[in-house]
Amino acid sequence: MPLPKSVKMVEVGPRDGLQNEPTPVAPAVKARLVDMLAEAGLTAIESGSFVSPKWVPQMAGTPEVLAAITRRPGVSYPVLVPNLKGLEAAEQAGGVDEIAVFGAASESFSQKNINCSIDESLARFAPVAERALANGWRVRGYVSCVLGCPYEGEIAPAKVAEVAQKLLAMGCYEISLGDTVGTGTPVKAQAMIEAVAQVVPVEKLAAHFHDTYGQALANILAVMEKGVAVVDSSVAGLGGCPYAKGASGNVASEDVLYMLDGMGIETGVDIDRLIAAGAYISGELGRPTGSKVARARGGCA
Amino acid sequence: MPLPKSVKMVEVGPRDGLQNEPTPVAPAVKARLVDMLAEAGLTAIESGSFVSPKWVPQMAGTPEVLAAITRRPGVSYPVLVPNLKGLEAAEQAGGVDEIAVFGAASESFSQKNINCSIDESLARFAPVAERALANGWRVRGYVSCVLGCPYEGEIAPAKVAEVAQKLLAMGCYEISLGDTVGTGTPVKAQAMIEAVAQVVPVEKLAAHFHDTYGQALANILAVMEKGVAVVDSSVAGLGGCPYAKGASGNVASEDVLYMLDGMGIETGVDIDRLIAAGAYISGELGRPTGSKVARARGGCA
Repeated sequence: MPLPKSVKMVEVGPRDGLQNEPTPVAPAVKARLVDMLAEAGLTAIESGSFVSPKWVPQMAGTPEVLAAITRRPGVSYPVLVPNLKGLEAAEQAGGVDEIAVFGAASESFSQKNINCSIDESLARFAPVAERALANGWRVRGYVSCVLGCPYEGEIAPAKVAEVAQKLLAMGCYEISLGDTVGTGTPVKAQAMIEAVAQVVPVEKLAAHFHDTYGQALANILAVMEKGVAVVDSSVAGLGGCPYAKGASGNVASEDVLYMLDGMGIETGVDIDRLIAAGAYISGELGRPTGSKVARARGGCA
Repeated sequence: MPLPKSVKMVEVGPRDGLQNEPTPVAPAVKARLVDMLAEAGLTAIESGSFVSPKWVPQMAGTPEVLAAITRRPGVSYPVLVPNLKGLEAAEQAGGVDEIAVFGAASESFSQKNINCSIDESLARFAPVAERALANGWRVRGYVSCVLGCPYEGEIAPAKVAEVAQKLLAMGCYEISLGDTVGTGTPVKAQAMIEAVAQVVPVEKLAAHFHDTYGQALANILAVMEKGVAVVDSSVAGLGGCPYAKGASGNVASEDVLYMLDGMGIETGVDIDRLIAAGAYISGELGRPTGSKVARARGGCA
């Protein structure tokens, strides 16, 4: 299969990234980051989460972020919603037209992370998705642990396909397949995509690979060879503190874009503006960028 | 073309790596590193260089390194030799059975790096290779700037093929193709390999990719898809200080091996022992490892 001619980059830094940074960031800074990312040409920017600030204090202030961003035509600003309470909060906040829901491909991870089975978690999301769709919103689904689980180790591709299919049936327009622990490698990534593509059209699949073991770009290349044309990434590698223990390791958007640009794959994203957005948030966090491209271009911060 | 069933990993950390580290390392430490790498299962370990210590002070003491290492059967310990004077020094040192010579694929780089044209540099290497072969030694050839030059930008694949063919004609048993600046991306890497493979059998080609822009593993995957089954790398990412300006960015051996292991490709190298060798030299240098796998396994140093 030839490589895709164009790829949609989904920016997850302001949510998945900042959620995993130790330093909390003010809503005005998050909004500025989202605006810079939109100015760089990104058309899908995950901008916050309606989870309880008790559990994820980094995501407090999402309504303020949504109110402060300068909306650009053609750009969506999805927010993560874990339950009906979160959905109600999103409705009250206003300005939401897309949400994300999630399920794990690992029973152990689901139990340890959200204290219920995979099926229970999907049952909990069904009314959330239904009401979001009734609001005229789009719903994106995440599957975590698609190439490995911190508790179970390897995960069967068939299990990933099963969860992805259920999210599709729930009305998700796109399913993002997450290598949460970053232990995936290219051949297994391809096998997983092939299994999922039997039940979900490959055009609806997104690759969400963490770079904890340095494998993310190779995995992204491998799944693009199988037809995947949507890639999640995080500006400056937000969410994986480059030099700290316990790095969760989102792949840096700049590094993904550099590869896509080099291969002549269209994204509509400008690398200099993207690097500027990464430099801005790295400065606010007081940490070096996690993007090798940004470091090579600008020298290590 | 299917991926290779096995890959030969060529370890360049003790030479190409340490040569580019700011901290000088004592011969005894270098020898211990080489021994740990051999114990990990590596069978080709570049162990030093007979260049003038005036130009490359980090490589002083190569005779002492060669005298101190515990030679293991089946392991080769090549040294870089830039001219006949270096070859004589290698002969006097003893214990050498393989040397490496080099040429650039960029005229500007050749002029700025070694102050002569590509053809002049190859003419200078011809008697070196001839005498090494007469000694019964093997000769390995490096081509630098194969995917880009800091002065010229893009490099024509035909130029790389021309230089590689000349090194083959000089008697090199293997040609290592170096992305010196790290700006290569997968499609261009494949096109370069296809061009070179028209004049040098692909079995004789090695990939030597720097990770300065984060692209190395994706490029290695891409060229393995074109039949390349020899990969150069540097334990702990030696030679590319992970957090310092001007990182030259050798790809970390641990990260390459993790990918190959995950794909079921045989190397004969043990990842735990390789990580131990990287931890040893990182400790001696007083810097964190440049390997993401090592960081994920052990926490950031």
